[in-house]
Amino acid sequence: METAEYTIIYGVELQNLASAALVRLGVENQQAGDAAKVLTLADMMGVHTHGVGRVLSYGERLKIGGINAKAQFDMTEMAPALAVLDGDNGLGPAVGMKALNSAMAMAETTGIACVLVHGSNHFGPVAPYAWLAAEQGFASFICSNATTTIAPTGGKQARLGNNPLGFGFPAPGGDPVILDMAMSVAARARIRNAAAAGQQIPEGWATDSQGLPTTDPAAALRGFLLPLGGYKGYGLSLCVDLLAGVLANAAYLTHVKSWVDAPGSAQDLGHSFILIDTRKLMPATRLADRMTDFASILHETPPVNAEMPVMLPGEREMRSLNNARQDGIRLDGALVEKLRAIAQS
Amino acid sequence: METAEYTIIYGVELQNLASAALVRLGVENQQAGDAAKVLTLADMMGVHTHGVGRVLSYGERLKIGGINAKAQFDMTEMAPALAVLDGDNGLGPAVGMKALNSAMAMAETTGIACVLVHGSNHFGPVAPYAWLAAEQGFASFICSNATTTIAPTGGKQARLGNNPLGFGFPAPGGDPVILDMAMSVAARARIRNAAAAGQQIPEGWATDSQGLPTTDPAAALRGFLLPLGGYKGYGLSLCVDLLAGVLANAAYLTHVKSWVDAPGSAQDLGHSFILIDTRKLMPATRLADRMTDFASILHETPPVNAEMPVMLPGEREMRSLNNARQDGIRLDGALVEKLRAIAQS
Repeated sequence: METAEYTIIYGVELQNLASAALVRLGVENQQAGDAAKVLTLADMMGVHTHGVGRVLSYGERLKIGGINAKAQFDMTEMAPALAVLDGDNGLGPAVGMKALNSAMAMAETTGIACVLVHGSNHFGPVAPYAWLAAEQGFASFICSNATTTIAPTGGKQARLGNNPLGFGFPAPGGDPVILDMAMSVAARARIRNAAAAGQQIPEGWATDSQGLPTTDPAAALRGFLLPLGGYKGYGLSLCVDLLAGVLANAAYLTHVKSWVDAPGSAQDLGHSFILIDTRKLMPATRLADRMTDFASILHETPPVNAEMPVMLPGEREMRSLNNARQDGIRLDGALVEKLRAIAQS
Repeated sequence: METAEYTIIYGVELQNLASAALVRLGVENQQAGDAAKVLTLADMMGVHTHGVGRVLSYGERLKIGGINAKAQFDMTEMAPALAVLDGDNGLGPAVGMKALNSAMAMAETTGIACVLVHGSNHFGPVAPYAWLAAEQGFASFICSNATTTIAPTGGKQARLGNNPLGFGFPAPGGDPVILDMAMSVAARARIRNAAAAGQQIPEGWATDSQGLPTTDPAAALRGFLLPLGGYKGYGLSLCVDLLAGVLANAAYLTHVKSWVDAPGSAQDLGHSFILIDTRKLMPATRLADRMTDFASILHETPPVNAEMPVMLPGEREMRSLNNARQDGIRLDGALVEKLRAIAQS
């Protein structure tokens, strides 16, 4: 781990900075602002791997035309509660925000709505979308396909992405419950960290290139990530690809181009945004009571370790978000400087 | 394992038999027929744990009023694509079929639709619903909460159910892809089998009553099932309960009554049926092509073991279903006799 100088920056300032940098990279104002909002929320939630640092990697692809800075989004309503969005190979989080906002607007009338997306790119983490939806009273089920990193159960070649999926549930007056998960037991970054530290990895994280279990991080990096729960995780990942890839008219499985191997090519990633307007189901006061009771039942579970009480999904991220709103975000100073340099270039 | 005499019976005959037995148990014709269809499909798919054998356990509860044989279903449309169904403590699979058919009818107009259910009971496996939907061109996401058997991550008391969820995707002209999974790494029945056989269970299946990992099946049976992928599976199970329990106005977490401990009480289980009309998205011929290509890419993955090619979720069940249609279902003869005895009583 390299040492870093940290800087404290508030959300509004960071979002403006990321947005200005994206505008300098050729992105139109609205799309730059939308993308900056998603990435800044990720940093506020403590998910720095998917935060404004992505402006740099997205920027590399914007510069060589791998991502279309001048994307013209095209929304087609297939039915009153079902639409398809062509992202025109635009910036993923800007495409995602367009899909999210459209799905919420439709669900306000129809109760539930789905926007399927093709022609997109990496859309950041799921949690910011789920949080924005929950703040407006919407429950959400959001997922995306991705570059292949996972071998199907019984196979020894990567044919599936670590397709993230997430759920969000509003708790009026309190923090929503948000699940944001990828399909592998462990992220590839953790295996790289183990390799760098000269440590073994636990069984069940990955296989070698022959599809056989390994605890050697170097062999694992030449092999495949294992999906959680074996064939169940394989099945979940595959269903995400059927929904967000096949049904969305996007690329799927090995048709998804790798952004590492072909940074200048369109990935044609697909997403699915399904939103439910909870205000149609019950008054906010009743939902608040039920969500409070739900959380209490879990929090009051006798803990295995007295010092580690049971938590709900997203609780850590919500704590980080609330802290960031009050005290700002603690961010790598060099990253902030790089963003300033782009914004002022 | 006890030895059993097997009998061969065709689906139509089995469904009529199960339906007649349910009618003799006081259930109205339509509901009995619907429930019999779900359970028979389960047997045809080879999922005998959730097949017509359930008529006997449902029957015990019907007799003592734990399940309401005279249920009056009450559907409330909250918005054009969102409805809530009160199952009136009726037979789970009959309630489930009502929800499925209503959601499909709505989605035919709105593209996607959701029916949330409360006041229900065990609704059988997810796969039959997903299959029926797929045969009519609908993709589905279906889930249910359940009696508590899983401790939240870091806790040592069961507060969550092994909440099943499933996805179905039509492949016009071919077999749909169907994922039907519960949230535990292994079913409780497999732990009971290990205990009966005097065998250890693998690490990761269960904890003892103190929430600590165990490979002793007896300790595991006094403890808790572990969800797949640790906190990820815990999160998934919890999200199913938020959707199918909290939002559906059903019982959730420890509010769900155990059918074993309180067979005469209403469980107030909740389900969620979300259906997408794929015919709104693309012509059936195009979907057929994409689904065929999708399956080929997975089937053609180089296998770890040359004799075990990669399969898709539900493939085994679809093979069993197709065999059953041609050659009938191989079923425990004693079970068929018991159903006949009830039907003719």
